[in-house]
Amino acid sequence: MEQENCVFCKIVSGEIPSSTIYEDNDFKVILDISPATKGHAIIIPKNHAKNVFELSEEDASKVFVVAKKVATAMKEALKCDGFNILQNNEEVAGQTVFHFHMHLIPRYKEDKVTIKWCDEHYVGEDIGIIAEKIKKCL
Amino acid sequence: MEQENCVFCKIVSGEIPSSTIYEDNDFKVILDISPATKGHAIIIPKNHAKNVFELSEEDASKVFVVAKKVATAMKEALKCDGFNILQNNEEVAGQTVFHFHMHLIPRYKEDKVTIKWCDEHYVGEDIGIIAEKIKKCL
Ligand SMILES: [Zn+2]
Ligand SMILES: [Zn+2]
Repeated sequence: MEQENCVFCKIVSGEIPSSTIYEDNDFKVILDISPATKGHAIIIPKNHAKNVFELSEEDASKVFVVAKKVATAMKEALKCDGFNILQNNEEVAGQTVFHFHMHLIPRYKEDKVTIKWCDEHYVGEDIGIIAEKIKKCL
Repeated sequence: MEQENCVFCKIVSGEIPSSTIYEDNDFKVILDISPATKGHAIIIPKNHAKNVFELSEEDASKVFVVAKKVATAMKEALKCDGFNILQNNEEVAGQTVFHFHMHLIPRYKEDKVTIKWCDEHYVGEDIGIIAEKIKKCL
């Protein structure tokens, strides 16, 4: 289902050209033109979904198989030292195109990617209370 | 297949206690005791695999279904503003426990998580050459 004015829908349809490295019935994998590192790729499902919450069950069952397959080829081709697989949802999390996508980011010693957080700590019973809250929604 | 001295294998077996929020035949999802943000959880496959490259095809087809399911419940329970799903491979990419795991990181305005990179740019034909290199390994 193509969404009007969605850049990734237009990439899927070919209306916007891209450097495609993999394609099957459900996904297109392209190289990012403003890459975090050399070879940075993006997995795009052909069906428009805004984010992980809207992603179909079927695409969810296939997307990480594609991630593993393409990441393995990228590692061999690029001789990178490590690999991040990252999927952002909503602006506060760094999502800029609102068509679900998964980043495949080859990592190299001395690259310019920063992924970090301050380790917080739960005090007292908090962790148990939070666990119960989440379990109630499952 | 349990690996000796692997912290996550011991969490899976119950030898090390954890705040489990979800469990099925193949995965255990626990709250991180040093969370990036409130509710930060980790999906751990029960079968030991070092990283995405060692992950079985079957676990790869199930892990993102679990991610979607648990992330949806977390969003409802925690009322977070966004969500990162992150999977790190090798030390240079931030992997600290060498048993595959996927981070579910709820994001809140004003939290202390940093995920950023400098957008690089390919010059001339580079992007096409890199795409060809990767395609040859697929
Ligand atoms: Zn779209
Ligand atoms: Zn293990």
